[in-house]
Amino acid sequence: MSQTDTIAAISTPAGVGGIAVVRLSGPEALSVATKHLVVRLEARKATYCRFDELDDVVAVYYPRGYTGEPTVEISCHGSLYIQQAIIDALVADGARMAEAGEFTMRAFRNGRLNLSQAEAVADLIDASTPAQHRLAVSQLRGGYAARLKELRQQLLDITSLMELELDFSQEDVEFADRTQLRQLLSALNTQLTSLIDTFRIGNALKRGIPVAIIGKPNAGKSSLLNALLGDERAIVSDIPGTTRDTIEETLTIGSLTFRFIDTAGLRHSTDTIEALGIERSLKAVADAQIVLIIHDATTPWQDPGLDLSSKKVIVVFNKSDLPRHSSLNTSHSSLSVSSKTGDGIAALKQAMLAAVEPQAAQDVLLSNARHHAALQQVLQAVTHVSEGLDENLPADLLAVDLRDALYHLGSITGEVVSNDILSNIFSRFCIGK
Amino acid sequence: MSQTDTIAAISTPAGVGGIAVVRLSGPEALSVATKHLVVRLEARKATYCRFDELDDVVAVYYPRGYTGEPTVEISCHGSLYIQQAIIDALVADGARMAEAGEFTMRAFRNGRLNLSQAEAVADLIDASTPAQHRLAVSQLRGGYAARLKELRQQLLDITSLMELELDFSQEDVEFADRTQLRQLLSALNTQLTSLIDTFRIGNALKRGIPVAIIGKPNAGKSSLLNALLGDERAIVSDIPGTTRDTIEETLTIGSLTFRFIDTAGLRHSTDTIEALGIERSLKAVADAQIVLIIHDATTPWQDPGLDLSSKKVIVVFNKSDLPRHSSLNTSHSSLSVSSKTGDGIAALKQAMLAAVEPQAAQDVLLSNARHHAALQQVLQAVTHVSEGLDENLPADLLAVDLRDALYHLGSITGEVVSNDILSNIFSRFCIGK
Repeated sequence: MSQTDTIAAISTPAGVGGIAVVRLSGPEALSVATKHLVVRLEARKATYCRFDELDDVVAVYYPRGYTGEPTVEISCHGSLYIQQAIIDALVADGARMAEAGEFTMRAFRNGRLNLSQAEAVADLIDASTPAQHRLAVSQLRGGYAARLKELRQQLLDITSLMELELDFSQEDVEFADRTQLRQLLSALNTQLTSLIDTFRIGNALKRGIPVAIIGKPNAGKSSLLNALLGDERAIVSDIPGTTRDTIEETLTIGSLTFRFIDTAGLRHSTDTIEALGIERSLKAVADAQIVLIIHDATTPWQDPGLDLSSKKVIVVFNKSDLPRHSSLNTSHSSLSVSSKTGDGIAALKQAMLAAVEPQAAQDVLLSNARHHAALQQVLQAVTHVSEGLDENLPADLLAVDLRDALYHLGSITGEVVSNDILSNIFSRFCIGK
Repeated sequence: MSQTDTIAAISTPAGVGGIAVVRLSGPEALSVATKHLVVRLEARKATYCRFDELDDVVAVYYPRGYTGEPTVEISCHGSLYIQQAIIDALVADGARMAEAGEFTMRAFRNGRLNLSQAEAVADLIDASTPAQHRLAVSQLRGGYAARLKELRQQLLDITSLMELELDFSQEDVEFADRTQLRQLLSALNTQLTSLIDTFRIGNALKRGIPVAIIGKPNAGKSSLLNALLGDERAIVSDIPGTTRDTIEETLTIGSLTFRFIDTAGLRHSTDTIEALGIERSLKAVADAQIVLIIHDATTPWQDPGLDLSSKKVIVVFNKSDLPRHSSLNTSHSSLSVSSKTGDGIAALKQAMLAAVEPQAAQDVLLSNARHHAALQQVLQAVTHVSEGLDENLPADLLAVDLRDALYHLGSITGEVVSNDILSNIFSRFCIGK
């Protein structure tokens, strides 16, 4: 994508509406627009005028707009015909149709946003729940920039100690205090790990908190799901599963979206589970943050025998409208519901919220998969340095790993970044942003 | 719909996009907006600011906006969450969700647009072809306002002549020159009829020009339709038929959209046509502006025996890739095509365009069904006056019909109009316009 030309796109959602906005950005934005508008545009002044013989529009000229370049925004009537005709007219005069995310890429290239903020713009636009919105806003307004800066400073401190040694390397003298280095590296490792760990909840907030519902065939898994979705089924959005092509049900409780993972495997008889279903169910459980074990309360409790140590587990004794079996002791937290009468469903929703809300309220939450991968690379490089120290490797070898760590850290905010990565990031934007 | 409150709506198309625009109109527009924006808005100045902690937006205040009232337009990021949250925040502060078309209804009530122009706004937004767009723009910019004014003046002239007579009605003297009255009425009748007649093409341009394809079972009707649609099938829009619930195929040639009417009835054997299909086919032909008679050119020509005197008829000799039968004389204009090879298809498209383009290019085209109905009422009233004159009815009886004619004429631009009619007109708008 060239930066010296002038780009145009419809920035409002695709379709018909009262009004639509066409955005024009680049060195020729004002002159291209002025060919079609009979008036002279003053900076930042909303001007009612005619676009050729086509439509009556309101145009605003920004000497330095969202992109950091001269920008003209034209609000026209939102018919398909007008939107297309305006774009056609601008393109005929030398503007180019913008590619997906190109306005935001220019904002990044012109230093209006760092790369992490630019990525947050796409997240902001995609957000449909309060939690997703909060994550995106936090990232857009700097996010964990302070944490990254701190990590960077620690890496630089370590590098300085190394360089001291390197300066004297000809003399084969080990100047750097390797004990101090080890302490610094250990602190850095702890901080990196804790930041990386927030991705689990950050990603869950972004995509919906994964909930596995498991239980025996007649425990009432489906009817519980229906009871949970209840009247809200109408606002449920269908998210195609990422690992299989099934449709998952989602439910928003309070500000959080929960995503229920299909565990059809546990529906089969015990023998079949062993043979076929267990792998799929284990996968569902492994992906989940919350595991709901549905149990028919008229039958004795039986532990599913899965390793659920890292999960928030809620045992749901279903069929509370029927006589309760005497043997229902479980070490997990539990509650009673009736999918039939709706009894206990509200309490179950609150329990699900309570299970994740404290984590969701954290200040700093990593939610971007690219950042997560980059931080894992930083951690790997830092681990290599620690191992190298243990093996008494010379400073110049350790310095290679340190440089690697700094590189990956810098890639998050875009201080160092390749064109391929940029293209990949901005291609997931919508056209017009 | 009250006019003293402040209304809010998302004015851009529904959905997710780079940006969305929330519009706020009414006496409290500025004060409601200012509660959420930290800055003071200057008139018509695009101001970058924060909407609560929610989003960074650009807001513009118009002391007298599209509605003729104080208006604030807020451009926000186009996520579903932000769009809804901004509306919620404005409504919490006393704004009301706007109903469909309410902004434009206010523009009408405040004298910014007459009713015919207000209706044109909805047509403008719905337009998806150049012809539809041109019709709407013409109506928005006054349209046949000049013609209506002329008609009104003629009605007033006739009324004046009548009143002269009424003033002296006690003396039972027939002052008005009834010959002159007859001349005026006849001229008015001619002009009304000619304007009403333009509705046929105006409506066709708006909805697509109706084309009936008729022919015997093996003439190749379906394959011709496919050949016509060809590569353009991808951009064909499905319009639900208005008289039946079938889907019709449409095709845009040049600036005009053609709508093909199903004449399945003629597919059956001759006997069955008589019994079942003929009524449906006759209806299709009656509704059509253009009738394509598809005939298998390897068989002798046979006239379908329908009354096509008011239609533009094109006989299409299909299968031009096969040996042609010697007996193919028809009084209709004809051309040869091969649906198989595509030969002649372009010429057929040009012939269809040529059949309607002259009419479509007319200056004044009635395209609004409500206006059409009103003008028919005017014509009916004027006809009553003429008949009354012939029957020597007294002037005060004729005056009732004249008043009726003036009333219906005035309803077009909204000089006289009931609230029911207004609600009906604006309910077909989208929300936010």
